[in-house]
This record gives sequence, structure tokens and C-alpha cells, in this order.
Amino acid sequence: MKEDLFPDEITITDCPESAYISLHRMSYTQKGINKNWDFIKVHDSVAVILADTLRSELILVRQFRPPVFLREKTGITYELCAGITDKDLSPEETVREEIQEETGYSVRTEDIERITSFFTAVSFAGSRQTLYYAEVDDSKRTGSGGGVGTERLEVIRLPFSEIHSFMMDESKPKTPGLLFGLIWFIQNKL
Amino acid sequence: MKEDLFPDEITITDCPESAYISLHRMSYTQKGINKNWDFIKVHDSVAVILADTLRSELILVRQFRPPVFLREKTGITYELCAGITDKDLSPEETVREEIQEETGYSVRTEDIERITSFFTAVSFAGSRQTLYYAEVDDSKRTGSGGGVGTERLEVIRLPFSEIHSFMMDESKPKTPGLLFGLIWFIQNKL
Repeated sequence: MKEDLFPDEITITDCPESAYISLHRMSYTQKGINKNWDFIKVHDSVAVILADTLRSELILVRQFRPPVFLREKTGITYELCAGITDKDLSPEETVREEIQEETGYSVRTEDIERITSFFTAVSFAGSRQTLYYAEVDDSKRTGSGGGVGTERLEVIRLPFSEIHSFMMDESKPKTPGLLFGLIWFIQNKL
Repeated sequence: MKEDLFPDEITITDCPESAYISLHRMSYTQKGINKNWDFIKVHDSVAVILADTLRSELILVRQFRPPVFLREKTGITYELCAGITDKDLSPEETVREEIQEETGYSVRTEDIERITSFFTAVSFAGSRQTLYYAEVDDSKRTGSGGGVGTERLEVIRLPFSEIHSFMMDESKPKTPGLLFGLIWFIQNKL
């Protein structure tokens, strides 16, 4: 079966400059030694563990990720519903918008629980991701999800009973934020 | 008290090209839509949850991370012992070498347990990190750790009894791999 998310006509080229990724260099002295460190500036982000409590399922997304494709045969990863904080919105408003756009559920910002934050790709990007938790059910369904504009992703429903086996199944590529979110959910909400 | 890891004379500049970070562009077609996606190529890596079972402590490292400094007042993060796989070594040999260099313990490769792997920074880098577990005690101590060459890091000992409170303490910046590792250790080894 042809994978619906999988692209055609893939080419990879060097890219002397990018409108999306900018290179920067920090120079500093540490214990008397002069050092230079190159890194990129990227947006901070939010991600949300989304549970359908009536159906006993977590709601995740899958999407094609170009740089993962270089390492893994499909380049399609399993992730938490997530997005960058690049608009003039509070983090909770960004979470609410991403839940709506990616999964089709309407959640009130006051029902979004903040869990913690962490720093990703600390050696070369260092962006902060803040993790949230929210619950939905059929009464909050107002759309089909799948992303907006040219964004293309699939909504995945993971039964609570399958979280453990899914978590350690490496044939389903995952982000570390998803792995932490799954085990946090088992320990704190299940 | 002056933080020992914290650098002086910090300057940040644009960096038109870098010997360490190279920009690439993938062009592809997805459901009839032509897309371009810019990303960087970075090395894959390994990380290890390291437990001193006789002292009932986990062994972590702290280091100054330039891109985190842009977001957080010290730029010093708490991490698992880890390293990139850029040499002609097996992943387990790389883990053994990083444990020796960063923490000062000698571990045999056959005593290093593979846990799982995941993909970090999937939107712009997509590197794979493989996670391991190993146990040490004083009899395996052969050095002081702290990194090699100009690398500078601190070894941190976290009592098993403090893992829970440490995990949710956001005044101590962490990577998602460390958060997953801590909660995995609680569930599987404690």
C-alpha cells in the first residue's frame, strides 16, 4: 500500500542560505580558553499530550520529516500534537490552536494543564519546548484535523492499553518529547 | 558564588558559513504540492542512563550550552552522559568511551544495555539518538571525568530518592532525553 504521507520526486541539494534557518556563532572564554560555537536560531515550541478519556485513547499525529528521511526508510515520525510559538499568542492559546488545526478538537485554554519544559538539540539549537496535557471527547470535535494550508499530517489514535508496546516499538519512529509524554501519562493519569 | 562552568566575554555574531553545521534543502512533491524544506545535517548520537547501584545515585553531567544561553539565564543544562557517533566505533564502544571521558568510570561494552532510539529536532535536524543503560560502582572508577581536550563539564550525582523532585524542577534545565531516561529508570530499574 502506498503510504499516503510519503512524498514523490525527492531531491536534496546544498543550500548556501536559508530564509528559515540562520547560522550564528558565539565566542566566549571558559576557564581561560577562547572558544567559538556555531548554532542555529529556531523558534521555541509547545506540545500537548491529548487524551480522549471516554474512548480511552491518546491522540497523536504522524508526519513526513525531511531530515529524518535521510536516516530512516520512510521519514514519517509519530509525534505529540505540537507547534512553534511564532505568533502573538500565549503558549496556551498556541496549544489550543494546534489542537484545533492538527486534530480537529476544540479545547478551552483554561482546560490545558502545563506539565514542564525542556531544551531540545542543546548542542546546536537549544530551543525550549513546553509540554501540556489536555482531555477531549466527541463533544469537543469540531473539525477533521490534519493540518492547515500545505501542512499535511495524519491523526493517530492510540488505545491506552497499547501505550507500553507502542513506546518500545522502534519500527515507529518517535520524538523524545513523545516518549516522555507517554511514560508521564502512564505514571500520572492512567 | 561564581558558577565554575559559566563563561566570560560572550559575543554573538551572524555566521555566513560554518565548518560544523551545513545547510541542505529537500525538494519534494506531496499529494501534488511541490514543497521545499531546509534542514541541517548533524551527527547521530548515543546517551546513557548511568546508575551507581551501591551508592543509590544516578550519574549525570552539566555543561554550558551556547544556544540555551540565549533563552535561559545561565545556559547550563543537566544531561545524560552522551556523545556523537563520529568515529569508527560501534555505538556501544562510543558509549563506553563517553562514560570514561565524561564521568571517569570504566564499563565493559557487554555490560551496556540498549533501551531504544528516537529522533530529535525532527523539523530541522532529525538526528537519531540511541539510549543505553549501564551500572557502575567505586570499583570501576579509573578517572575523574569532566571531559577531554577543551570540553568542560561537571559530573552530578543524583540520589535515587531525589529523582522525582529533580525531574519537575524547571530551575534545572534538562534535555527531553534526560527526562525520558529518569522516568524510564524509575519504572524499570528502581
